[in-house]
Amino acid sequence: MKDKIQYIPEVVVRRLPKYYRLLNELEKEGKKRVSSELISERLNITASQVRQDFSHFGAFGLQGYGYTVESLRDEIKGILGLTREYNIVIVGAGHIGQALANYQGFKREGINVLAVFDIKKEGISVPKEVEILDVSQLKEYASKHTIDIIAITTQGDVAEEIAKTAKEVGIPSIWNFAHKDIMPDEHTVVENINLNESVFTLIYMLNNINRE
Amino acid sequence: MKDKIQYIPEVVVRRLPKYYRLLNELEKEGKKRVSSELISERLNITASQVRQDFSHFGAFGLQGYGYTVESLRDEIKGILGLTREYNIVIVGAGHIGQALANYQGFKREGINVLAVFDIKKEGISVPKEVEILDVSQLKEYASKHTIDIIAITTQGDVAEEIAKTAKEVGIPSIWNFAHKDIMPDEHTVVENINLNESVFTLIYMLNNINRE
Repeated sequence: MKDKIQYIPEVVVRRLPKYYRLLNELEKEGKKRVSSELISERLNITASQVRQDFSHFGAFGLQGYGYTVESLRDEIKGILGLTREYNIVIVGAGHIGQALANYQGFKREGINVLAVFDIKKEGISVPKEVEILDVSQLKEYASKHTIDIIAITTQGDVAEEIAKTAKEVGIPSIWNFAHKDIMPDEHTVVENINLNESVFTLIYMLNNINRE
Repeated sequence: MKDKIQYIPEVVVRRLPKYYRLLNELEKEGKKRVSSELISERLNITASQVRQDFSHFGAFGLQGYGYTVESLRDEIKGILGLTREYNIVIVGAGHIGQALANYQGFKREGINVLAVFDIKKEGISVPKEVEILDVSQLKEYASKHTIDIIAITTQGDVAEEIAKTAKEVGIPSIWNFAHKDIMPDEHTVVENINLNESVFTLIYMLNNINRE
């Protein structure tokens, strides 16, 4: 089925993890099949949007039957690329860095936290299998290990330096939590999480809740 | 000018904080005016998109002159609603909760962290002006203080309970970091930050970098 997938718009891609999470939940609840209406209700997405999203990868529900939970889940898992494992390193061992290093959900999805890099080694609480290294060792470490993802949780100025190093050593994806966006390039994909921007968007919505 | 603003699509709203941050940076750099081309370059958004975004709130650049940095910044600040202060409480004092409580950037933008709620009070490091309270006190606290935003950084199941309480006591906006989305309603706006979904999106991009 993978060959049939041409191009999935980013806005749809961003909904795939939501569908994936819900389908996992439904499977745990013992549900064998699911309608676009139920998905709509649980995710606050219209049923027609759900059907349209799934049609991008050739999943069509049957009238009066819906979709098979397990096969739809596996399909989306495959599209997201969660059928193999990924190695992640974290640069910056502040609160956000430690939150990532300690997040139990990663292992469940085959994401292995290899190491945390910082300028100091004290007062950092991470699982014992995660190495704590000095940021000066990043380049050498990257030459000896396969790193799929680098999470950057440092200050903005440092983040740009780290991103430059990451691109030089060929780490293909950057998950950036610094307050300055990192730019993607032709060899590097980037996901910027900017908490400032997130709360500003919330404040905008708060001020416009009854105007739309 | 505010009266002229009708409806700004969410995708544009989400770019406003990026423009706001850049305009603040440009002002610090001493720039008085800026072209849509420079904004485009710094934010990785096309210049025509920039011009179209700004036209939503009646900001039109002049040919060969561009936009005045300060007035555009003030305009966007006003649209986002950052001309007044906001009170935020945080529920869940784990790594993410503590990261939010300690984030220096909030105060700069008039966002006051009032209190952190958890089931335990030990081992929590927050600025001294931030109260540490038991989660059982949330309802009473909310009745005595004006809370604009509640950040929820607990586990998913607890998060739904907290969100229910927040809606009951009339907190108008929820900033949710739990791994389960919180639904908005007609009185409550919600911004869900789901780290799992974010990294899955990154992994999708990583696997499709050269296919698009």
